[in-house]
Amino acid sequence: MSDKQPISHRRRQLITGGAALAVTGLGAAIAKPVSAACVPAEEIKFDEFVDVIVVGSGFAGMSAALQAREAGASVMVVDKMPVFGGNSTINGGAMAVAGSPLQEQNGIKDSVDTMVADMLEAGRGMNDVEMLKLVCNGTAESCQWLTDYGVKWKPFVQHFGGHSIPRVLQTVESSGAGIIRPLVKAAKKRGIDMRTQTKLESFIEDDNGRITGIEVKANYFFPKERSGVTRRYGARKGVIMATGGFGRDIEYRKMQQPKLTKELDSTNHPGANADALKQMMLIGANPIHLDQIQLGPWASPDEKGFGTASQFNTIATYPRGIVVDARTGKRFFNELADRKARADAIMTRRDAQGQPVYPIGFTNAEGASKAQTLDWGLKYNVIKKADTLEELAKIYGIPADALKAQVASWNKAVDTGEDSEFGRPMQKAMKLEQGPWYAVRMWPKVHYCMGGVKVNTRSEVLHLVTYKPIAGLYAAGEATGGIHGASRLGACAVAEGVVTGRNAGQMCAASKSIVLKHV
Amino acid sequence: MSDKQPISHRRRQLITGGAALAVTGLGAAIAKPVSAACVPAEEIKFDEFVDVIVVGSGFAGMSAALQAREAGASVMVVDKMPVFGGNSTINGGAMAVAGSPLQEQNGIKDSVDTMVADMLEAGRGMNDVEMLKLVCNGTAESCQWLTDYGVKWKPFVQHFGGHSIPRVLQTVESSGAGIIRPLVKAAKKRGIDMRTQTKLESFIEDDNGRITGIEVKANYFFPKERSGVTRRYGARKGVIMATGGFGRDIEYRKMQQPKLTKELDSTNHPGANADALKQMMLIGANPIHLDQIQLGPWASPDEKGFGTASQFNTIATYPRGIVVDARTGKRFFNELADRKARADAIMTRRDAQGQPVYPIGFTNAEGASKAQTLDWGLKYNVIKKADTLEELAKIYGIPADALKAQVASWNKAVDTGEDSEFGRPMQKAMKLEQGPWYAVRMWPKVHYCMGGVKVNTRSEVLHLVTYKPIAGLYAAGEATGGIHGASRLGACAVAEGVVTGRNAGQMCAASKSIVLKHV
Repeated sequence: MSDKQPISHRRRQLITGGAALAVTGLGAAIAKPVSAACVPAEEIKFDEFVDVIVVGSGFAGMSAALQAREAGASVMVVDKMPVFGGNSTINGGAMAVAGSPLQEQNGIKDSVDTMVADMLEAGRGMNDVEMLKLVCNGTAESCQWLTDYGVKWKPFVQHFGGHSIPRVLQTVESSGAGIIRPLVKAAKKRGIDMRTQTKLESFIEDDNGRITGIEVKANYFFPKERSGVTRRYGARKGVIMATGGFGRDIEYRKMQQPKLTKELDSTNHPGANADALKQMMLIGANPIHLDQIQLGPWASPDEKGFGTASQFNTIATYPRGIVVDARTGKRFFNELADRKARADAIMTRRDAQGQPVYPIGFTNAEGASKAQTLDWGLKYNVIKKADTLEELAKIYGIPADALKAQVASWNKAVDTGEDSEFGRPMQKAMKLEQGPWYAVRMWPKVHYCMGGVKVNTRSEVLHLVTYKPIAGLYAAGEATGGIHGASRLGACAVAEGVVTGRNAGQMCAASKSIVLKHV
Repeated sequence: MSDKQPISHRRRQLITGGAALAVTGLGAAIAKPVSAACVPAEEIKFDEFVDVIVVGSGFAGMSAALQAREAGASVMVVDKMPVFGGNSTINGGAMAVAGSPLQEQNGIKDSVDTMVADMLEAGRGMNDVEMLKLVCNGTAESCQWLTDYGVKWKPFVQHFGGHSIPRVLQTVESSGAGIIRPLVKAAKKRGIDMRTQTKLESFIEDDNGRITGIEVKANYFFPKERSGVTRRYGARKGVIMATGGFGRDIEYRKMQQPKLTKELDSTNHPGANADALKQMMLIGANPIHLDQIQLGPWASPDEKGFGTASQFNTIATYPRGIVVDARTGKRFFNELADRKARADAIMTRRDAQGQPVYPIGFTNAEGASKAQTLDWGLKYNVIKKADTLEELAKIYGIPADALKAQVASWNKAVDTGEDSEFGRPMQKAMKLEQGPWYAVRMWPKVHYCMGGVKVNTRSEVLHLVTYKPIAGLYAAGEATGGIHGASRLGACAVAEGVVTGRNAGQMCAASKSIVLKHV
């Protein structure tokens, strides 16, 4: 059907008014003659083409690009932002791996089935089990694959909330940049055509409904929707969508979850909107779990975005400390529960007017020893230091005696090895015996979209009506929906991105090429 | 864009193979020339046209049709099934009304705000508040409107689970047929063109992206997807989609909720599939909350579909009895909680192998006095009678002493007016003092889709990208998404269907007409 459909959609947007320009920026469409909607596929010309086009350059996109290149395909990676990596570069760089050498060295027994079971429990059974198995099954090998590309891991295994055992590796940089940087370097070295400021506008299909390429805005300056020039890039083998989630798309996320207003901050980068998801839906992609939007339970209201507290809480206060209600000094949830359970618990702390009463998470010097963002957090006054519990109580207006009583009963619980109140797993629990204490105020932030388009285990995007693949269209990572069900476990985004990205790259590169024409 | 889009989708379905035929039945499309995809809008011809086409003939569809007719529009109602009414005719005929004369007579204080608050709480705050207000605000007047069309109500107000007060009116027939029948009769009398066995295949749009009509299969025999002949019906003012939910579309519901397999029965009629929803999505309708699928907590595994137990439990065991675990004889949840809370609680009752252990709901003769399906339930052996608690315990293998102890403590709770264990509201609680006892085994069934397409308060379907109305396309009732959030309260489907249906009929009839051509 040539590019009738996207162009027709453009026309509708123009007709239905200005919002379209604001939302999807189709200024250039005005120039398009309506008759273009009837250009026969055989007359479609492309400015350039390659075998595989990857849209997005995060964990999924870079893994797809390199894997396709390894398979001998010519590859182009386009990213609408001025830098590569999207959310992946500002994420914590933690990857859940089932059966890593480090686990073995530390005598931690793990298996693909155990990781699947953990993710199923967090996902409330809503997970796409076939895709879940594909991800967990690929973690160990993909971790090695990353290492071969130069990713460096910390020498210890971490126990993240919701996981039944320590399973999490983390880059030495404590950041996803420790993964993205070497992958981008390798991609350029291997001749992958890497382009920033190139925004997907719509898909191009042939008469068989096969995706043959994309229409983009080159030299696009986010978020200037009128910037850039229109170009058509052809893909002989296919287009891989690694376009992430829509955590920063306030209007769109509010339609699914009215509580996620602009008052609620997000850990995502500004480009994390629903534009690419919508373009996939407009050509019949099947959306799954769009209203399953995860809040990060480790964030602080005292800084913007992911910040310093997220890593501090993940490594220090949650596994090696406790979280208390500032009004009572008492714990009120299992600090090692999955993200949804923790975020839901924290957001119950409100005053009579419904305003947040930020809970306090804290640990001591020993508990904070491995948190690399501690110094920055202290510098920016997000993390506060107190020599005694009295002082800590004073800083946050917590009743001092109640706080001391809570710490005492916590230490008793560690002795008995049982948290009778909230059922927290106590294997790795640490007694809180002496200061200095390090603490943060906590409130969740919009972090991850469990929802996205439905794919099969070949990473092909399935059509809403036929449930068959949309020929030439693949998707990986956060852009897909269903793998995590109702709640993604920590460190499973890197695992998903890398494993499904590589899978998409492999499948797309192995697919049959079609012949495309130059302008 | 004339009908390019639907035709292009048909072609994709044909190319991607047989499933398409099975899923959407596009056999006739084979005959269509590909070039038809480029028929200019001005050349589109219709076999027939009217001002307003309503797709679906349940509460929403019939209300929309009559309201549009009252406004002077010519109206056609198409339904793919051989009978009118869809799920509405097999529903319980219960309507939540905020501020009914019957409430006043019984000294029950209610308000639109109270009903909104109740529905928001059940919806977990995910509700579209503007639409919610529109619905609650319209209930009293719409109830009178139904009465004027000949609907007859029982002379008492009922207290359904999740509602903070008694608010529910019910037809004397205890069935939605008590609403559909008079509305269909009135429609025919007023010259509305009523057609069964007419299945929506796709939409027809003009060059401006305005919906100008629908392509249907006339003389269609559900579920024979190859049956029927293709016709094009034009709508000068618009098309109103009142196509309900997809509770019986096992493949589609499983994609959103993998646990809702074919093993789980549904209260819906066989035609309740996602075909119409998908056609709306293919032209850019914005899907909301598709994974929010409600299970009816009052159903019994001992009969198919809605059956006799649903009404019996709603009227008898839930408000005037208790529900116990068959293994312990003990209550385990608040029998007046919202549907989601009750269904979730019931489905926790499983054996070591994860197989259901059906809980037992029961009351006595006094409690069952108003349940009209009691006799049928007894006849079909779904409801069982026991003269003593010992006999009741024997029938279901409940420990007799434990059951008697539970009944005793329940009666004490009624005396104190407090359910300290599960926080059930006790205003209308009834003591269980003497037999005969009437009981059923309980297990939830797929009942209602909270999800659907996003509409504004003019009942216009909003486009995914522009967030502006898709010109000429309206939707009402279960086909829309967001009003109920995570969980719909009982008796709010009739309220939603009638109020939003009338709203859509009014708005569509008041819209500007366009000129259409005959064949």
